[in-house]
Amino acid sequence: MTKIDDLPTPSLVVDAARLEANLAAMAEARPGASLRPHVKAHKCTALAKRQVAHGHRTFCAATIREIEGMAAAGLGEDLLLANEVLDATRLGVVAEQGARVTVAVDSEETIEAAARGGVQEVLIDVNVGLPRCGCAPEEAGRLGERARAAGLEVRGVMGYEGHVVGNADRAAREEGCRVSMEKLVVAHADVGGDVLSAGGTGTYDCNTWANEIQAGSYALMDTAYATLDLPFRQAFFVLSTVVSIAPAGAGYLIGDAGLKAFGMDHGNPHLPGGRVLFCSDEHVTFLAGRAEEDTAPSPIEWELGVSPKIGDRIRMVPAHVDPTLAYHDRLYVADGEDIVDEWPVDLRGWTPID
Amino acid sequence: MTKIDDLPTPSLVVDAARLEANLAAMAEARPGASLRPHVKAHKCTALAKRQVAHGHRTFCAATIREIEGMAAAGLGEDLLLANEVLDATRLGVVAEQGARVTVAVDSEETIEAAARGGVQEVLIDVNVGLPRCGCAPEEAGRLGERARAAGLEVRGVMGYEGHVVGNADRAAREEGCRVSMEKLVVAHADVGGDVLSAGGTGTYDCNTWANEIQAGSYALMDTAYATLDLPFRQAFFVLSTVVSIAPAGAGYLIGDAGLKAFGMDHGNPHLPGGRVLFCSDEHVTFLAGRAEEDTAPSPIEWELGVSPKIGDRIRMVPAHVDPTLAYHDRLYVADGEDIVDEWPVDLRGWTPID
Repeated sequence: MTKIDDLPTPSLVVDAARLEANLAAMAEARPGASLRPHVKAHKCTALAKRQVAHGHRTFCAATIREIEGMAAAGLGEDLLLANEVLDATRLGVVAEQGARVTVAVDSEETIEAAARGGVQEVLIDVNVGLPRCGCAPEEAGRLGERARAAGLEVRGVMGYEGHVVGNADRAAREEGCRVSMEKLVVAHADVGGDVLSAGGTGTYDCNTWANEIQAGSYALMDTAYATLDLPFRQAFFVLSTVVSIAPAGAGYLIGDAGLKAFGMDHGNPHLPGGRVLFCSDEHVTFLAGRAEEDTAPSPIEWELGVSPKIGDRIRMVPAHVDPTLAYHDRLYVADGEDIVDEWPVDLRGWTPID
Repeated sequence: MTKIDDLPTPSLVVDAARLEANLAAMAEARPGASLRPHVKAHKCTALAKRQVAHGHRTFCAATIREIEGMAAAGLGEDLLLANEVLDATRLGVVAEQGARVTVAVDSEETIEAAARGGVQEVLIDVNVGLPRCGCAPEEAGRLGERARAAGLEVRGVMGYEGHVVGNADRAAREEGCRVSMEKLVVAHADVGGDVLSAGGTGTYDCNTWANEIQAGSYALMDTAYATLDLPFRQAFFVLSTVVSIAPAGAGYLIGDAGLKAFGMDHGNPHLPGGRVLFCSDEHVTFLAGRAEEDTAPSPIEWELGVSPKIGDRIRMVPAHVDPTLAYHDRLYVADGEDIVDEWPVDLRGWTPID
């Protein structure tokens, strides 16, 4: 049996028990179709199948490639592209091959693109405060009519409170969610349809307005979401090997995982029991020993030893799960220290499946 | 003929004329083996073959996978893994199959790994000031002897002045390079061998101590290196589509390229004629109109129009080339506005070639 520490490095390792606990906790709070898991966070159909095992059969995605891959994996019962596209041709092909495909629209141009591309169903994407996609709430009704006039089935509305989901102050998060969702409810009244799709890992429980939550990060988690009071724990780390130790007195060490192994937009990865100084393309320079001000519990059940040696393995938790997964081509699945499976990160990139 | 604006988005586009001009400028300054192009910057054997066309036949790399891929592409005449590894088995296989493979070592452990893995040649990696790999200069001679005792051919030394190469103050860069290289020269006197390998794009001309320069970024460039007084220009950009425009009055627009299309460790990409506000996984939120304080010339021959519309294409220049390339599976090569070739980014990841 391959052990974690036998893996080549850098490698991305998923703790199966923690993953299952996260999936179970979410499925209890948001069973079945009340959760629409977002595959952009993991880009992995094998992991999506674990979400199916926990009762979810509807999914959302951020790219056409993700939709194609989910359909090809037999997970096309109800796929939502929660994003705008100007060329929906590839989505139309997926729908024609038997998957149910819905796409977000927020303008006349994206409505026309959906109709022209052969997609049959849409949600009106409503801006609820995040400066990103979505029409003004008062425009939603008009766009819904426009979509119906173009021959599209309008299933309802979506509106992502992404400016709110990461707020560590629970009361502020709840209040921000309420303000956002009141906009979505107003838009929904004008648009009609069964679906109010919204939310994320940070608002999975307090968003009581949406009837489906688009959460993705909860499955694997990252250090950014770990600062919130959520029942989900980090379930993955990047394994690295100590390849060098500084000349005597300098005190730092070097591991073989860097900027191409971690999404860096939320900052450096966390090294339990150590301190990351900086990352280079294929290296992390770090110190052994916990910083005095670091009183946070270790996010994984592992901690750097006091005197690491060349050849030792270290385990680092990424700050942002989504862009980290996008760098890796596989997830190694661990049961304790045993590697029990290997899952391709098969939804990466943007080009059609070969 | 496919035009740039016909491509799916996001896509990574290389301007062939600019790339060729960068390659030619470097080959004139550093002909043949006086440059050892670093493939970590582009991870693309097709681009490496353009470097061969400009007279370079020796290459360096940061990962075992890059070495394997270069050898498989017939570019294995003289490959240096400018990095430490504790398991050199895969390198030994590449060498056994006929490529010349040299690996950096900076400790007894990495020397033993090289010998055990079947690699025949090494460079002693010397710390010249960057807090990363490399032995203390005064240890280099001892490690050289140790490597020879282990049956390895010691070709010389390497030492990367990575803490210096990005300094925009040319005088400070030259002085920092001198201080670093004097350490390397001392180490070389103790180690022997023909090779003094060092440098990068920022010190390609002022590093007169090294007899081969490990530059990679010069081929495609990025906005970080663009702040230096170098004769190389940005030769690539990420193409994106405007998928949404903010509700009236808000003023921002949204493109379909984000955290999974750009290495973010050096900050947001540059949008000529516009201002990037922030990136999300698959989105960039931006303003049209140049910032008043932005007097820099556009790094590419393109600028955002004053009133972008949904469906328009935008061109963004990444802040850091290396981790950006690692997100993409192909480079589209443009001659003016025509797409003339498509190059796989075939050196990505860490796992063996299928």
